[in-house]
Amino acid sequence: MFERVFDFSIVKRARDKKILDLRFVDLRQFSTDKYKSVDDRPYGGGAGMVMRVDIIDKALAGKTGKIILLDAGGEKFTQKKAVQLSKEKNLIIICGHYEGIDHRVHEHLANEIISIGDYVLSGGEIPAMVLVDSITRLLPGVLGNPNSLNEESFSDALKIKNCKLKIDCEYPQYTRPEDYNGWKVPEVLLSGDHKKIKAWQQSPSKN
Amino acid sequence: MFERVFDFSIVKRARDKKILDLRFVDLRQFSTDKYKSVDDRPYGGGAGMVMRVDIIDKALAGKTGKIILLDAGGEKFTQKKAVQLSKEKNLIIICGHYEGIDHRVHEHLANEIISIGDYVLSGGEIPAMVLVDSITRLLPGVLGNPNSLNEESFSDALKIKNCKLKIDCEYPQYTRPEDYNGWKVPEVLLSGDHKKIKAWQQSPSKN
Repeated sequence: MFERVFDFSIVKRARDKKILDLRFVDLRQFSTDKYKSVDDRPYGGGAGMVMRVDIIDKALAGKTGKIILLDAGGEKFTQKKAVQLSKEKNLIIICGHYEGIDHRVHEHLANEIISIGDYVLSGGEIPAMVLVDSITRLLPGVLGNPNSLNEESFSDALKIKNCKLKIDCEYPQYTRPEDYNGWKVPEVLLSGDHKKIKAWQQSPSKN
Repeated sequence: MFERVFDFSIVKRARDKKILDLRFVDLRQFSTDKYKSVDDRPYGGGAGMVMRVDIIDKALAGKTGKIILLDAGGEKFTQKKAVQLSKEKNLIIICGHYEGIDHRVHEHLANEIISIGDYVLSGGEIPAMVLVDSITRLLPGVLGNPNSLNEESFSDALKIKNCKLKIDCEYPQYTRPEDYNGWKVPEVLLSGDHKKIKAWQQSPSKN
């Protein structure tokens, strides 16, 4: 599932530059039966399958780093958390799947339980992609143009305005064509007057 | 980027069953220069590139459906929104990229602007995967076991408890082995007493 996703954009760049070492572990290799199963039916009944604690524990053996379990019931992932995690040397992300994961993984194995939002997904793979992308772009040296990170930087924005998320404070951006179907770029941006442009970009009515 | 992600799990199942018709549009085919570029430098200066409104407008021509722009500054995506969108016949998801997208796309083309959470990603592709996965699993006939959706259903949960998200109210699940490293499955789940099990699952202290 991850094969092509990270062949693009900043994650590929980070891997090529050896800033990021990303490894995938297939839990099936830790299965003990001939079907390579990693889940089983829940005790007490109920629909769906539950991922086994022993399989996950074996997959973690010998690995060091902060262990993150992705679960819709976890702590909400935010840019602040991305910044925190970007400072860790090693991260291990456990992607749960379908209906559930044995609760002993929550209790005994995971260091943090993280949710990417208040919605239900079929598995933890796409949330893992969210974490990898958001954290990777914060690693020093990843973004080609250092201004990009600077201009988008969370803390910079907080200084300027009272933004929960930098992106809330971003000013509207426009590029060519100047006039498309009668939809025009604001004149001030074409003025060449940097002071005026700055003022327009920072005016709250535009944000 | 999407090539492998949707070859798995419920999205593949939905496509195989012809419940979901998922199409990808490469914006580069609407480019008018020899470099196949779809973005350009921002008016008024600034780091990064901005995706062009004319390219996106051309890509939308002749297509019908609700047009969603993924943008970290948009309305927060929730399970409720997933349910709403799962009732639409056609959805068009625009994946922005990098620093920005011409603001005229917000103003004139998008019907809804959605954010999957308070964090910054390098593009809209992974957020698009989030939308596709969460919406697809809500389409009638997609989940093999109808109980799965039922038991996980948002509205059912709301009836039982005051949950913002059903998953917050899910009870801990366990599967084999019963005892792993001394980490044991709660005895009640092994009792076979369905009344007691139900009571345990619904007790707030466990959730």
